[in-house]
Amino acid sequence: MKNLTVELKEKKYDILIGEGLLDKLGELLAPFCQDGVIAVVTDENVWGLYRERFFSSLSRAEVAFEAIVLPAGEASKSLDGLSGLYDTFARLSLPRDGLVAAFGGGVVGDLCGLAAATWMRGVGFAQVPTTLLAQVDSSVGGKTAINLVHGKNLVGAFYQPKIVVIDPSTLDSLPEREVRCGMAEVIKYGAIRSTGLFASLAPSASPEPTEETGAALADVIGDCCRIKSEIVSRDEHDFGERMLLNFGHTFGHAIEKQSGFAPCRHGEAVSFGMVLAAGLGERMGLTEPGTADSLRRALSLHGLDADYKGELPALLPALSMDKKSGSGGVRMIMLRRIGEAFVQRVGFDEIKKFLANA
Amino acid sequence: MKNLTVELKEKKYDILIGEGLLDKLGELLAPFCQDGVIAVVTDENVWGLYRERFFSSLSRAEVAFEAIVLPAGEASKSLDGLSGLYDTFARLSLPRDGLVAAFGGGVVGDLCGLAAATWMRGVGFAQVPTTLLAQVDSSVGGKTAINLVHGKNLVGAFYQPKIVVIDPSTLDSLPEREVRCGMAEVIKYGAIRSTGLFASLAPSASPEPTEETGAALADVIGDCCRIKSEIVSRDEHDFGERMLLNFGHTFGHAIEKQSGFAPCRHGEAVSFGMVLAAGLGERMGLTEPGTADSLRRALSLHGLDADYKGELPALLPALSMDKKSGSGGVRMIMLRRIGEAFVQRVGFDEIKKFLANA
Repeated sequence: MKNLTVELKEKKYDILIGEGLLDKLGELLAPFCQDGVIAVVTDENVWGLYRERFFSSLSRAEVAFEAIVLPAGEASKSLDGLSGLYDTFARLSLPRDGLVAAFGGGVVGDLCGLAAATWMRGVGFAQVPTTLLAQVDSSVGGKTAINLVHGKNLVGAFYQPKIVVIDPSTLDSLPEREVRCGMAEVIKYGAIRSTGLFASLAPSASPEPTEETGAALADVIGDCCRIKSEIVSRDEHDFGERMLLNFGHTFGHAIEKQSGFAPCRHGEAVSFGMVLAAGLGERMGLTEPGTADSLRRALSLHGLDADYKGELPALLPALSMDKKSGSGGVRMIMLRRIGEAFVQRVGFDEIKKFLANA
Repeated sequence: MKNLTVELKEKKYDILIGEGLLDKLGELLAPFCQDGVIAVVTDENVWGLYRERFFSSLSRAEVAFEAIVLPAGEASKSLDGLSGLYDTFARLSLPRDGLVAAFGGGVVGDLCGLAAATWMRGVGFAQVPTTLLAQVDSSVGGKTAINLVHGKNLVGAFYQPKIVVIDPSTLDSLPEREVRCGMAEVIKYGAIRSTGLFASLAPSASPEPTEETGAALADVIGDCCRIKSEIVSRDEHDFGERMLLNFGHTFGHAIEKQSGFAPCRHGEAVSFGMVLAAGLGERMGLTEPGTADSLRRALSLHGLDADYKGELPALLPALSMDKKSGSGGVRMIMLRRIGEAFVQRVGFDEIKKFLANA
């Protein structure tokens, strides 16, 4: 079992990573709940697969819980979804020293985290992510959010969990498309911070995906969590270094928004977004030539489409609504080269020109 | 002009108190907004009274703003009210470095503060409270919240403003009932922390309310803000000393809930709650005999009704939903004597017995 600690100014918490941790969940969560009931937020897919293991593990530790099973999918990550959780918390009389656990992917974690952050101005919160995307990214660092009709993640809070428990064996049951989406974020970590990780994901001697690529998956989770927790420790509230984690997300969010959230998954949109951002950087002379191609190759090795087929100029209006936008331009994450990222304000005119000719 | 500083672990901010500060609002808020527009949240009463002064002040400082004018009253402090603010923020493309200002009473401040806390995971927030209750209590310390049908303030966040600007001249236009409600919280500060303040509010030589009582009102705001900011500095997230500020609020919230939020105002409910808590403490031998009577006298000197006429035993179910409740009892704030408060867990049985016989 790997054990990483996220050290923040006012608090710290552990990320535990290990095969089979799901069966130890009861004893791992018990220290964080008082004599009350844990409110477990999950979705119907995850609950269908793990209900019994979850139940046995919590029963063995004599931890009582109530499961709140949401429909699977992004639609739950809404004000209505949030309101529904509040209703259940009220019915459970969930106290201020109670514990809410998110058991599922990013949608469950983001929604449940915001509910935990705001119920009675903050109750205990545990993350038990079951998708690769959530395990390497959304469960670590305390970003919670819901979507509005106006855009993704527009409403949220920085709210740190008390513990993150990652059992990579849950990835075995994950649809291939979901694993691919997670790999987009894994590739992102390599691209912004680690040439070693990036090289291991796209070995130059291996032009085709191999079985080893799959087998190595569980190991890279630790690397990604380490990179993320180091960055978050230095910049919890996303005013500096943490922005680097948004590489690919500016164009990515615009693409997701344009695709109406449904047809294009987050990881797929981020794949397109990273290649676009690298392409923009190369065009502007900020990024080493060939970087976009390196990304294309790494992405395609992991089954990800790298080139967005939609209307590029149509992305512009959505960019101006992006959280990272300000007057006159967007604060974008650019690569100097693979392994090295930086923040750059790019004018809307520059982006417009690029999108028209890309 | 008085200038108090609230010093927290990670940040600090100023509370400015002075007659006429409303006319300097533009220059006071300007440092906290970038080149964008300030989203000003207010209600129709406040806006009707101060629209022109507000407009001139901000124009003089060349600060652009958009006013979001809510219906007056507690109903705005809801999920629907919150959702409405998000819609406007989206329409304004309010950026992460933008500023939201609450211009009004506690309802406006609580709702607007939660919207500011959660829009893009937190934007700049300024408090410009216009009621006595908001000036001495809700605008200082960073508690934000909305009500649910299940209870008051069940959803919220700790979110500190960047500045609090208090112009006591706004109290001149306040209905008498509103001033009385604020006085309940002023009396609370005396009761929990300052015999001097309490004595000045209920001088033993003056059995009748005098003109001086009214004139002294502006001065006590500073005292209350100082007491509150000292307590909040030591316990921002309400796990210890800050709970003392809830004196009178456990019964008070139950009374408000029972009265359906409308007929009984917060300050009126807190008045009843303080006398009940002191009575319970005297009954339990924890509170100096005569304390409830001292409170009754101070309250009635300021025109406040001290004895709740409703069904006392009917308050019990609401107490178990209170944020301060846990299994088997309620964490209540009790007085040892005027000027000295402490936290005490009181069993539901004890409370039930008291309510049956009070």
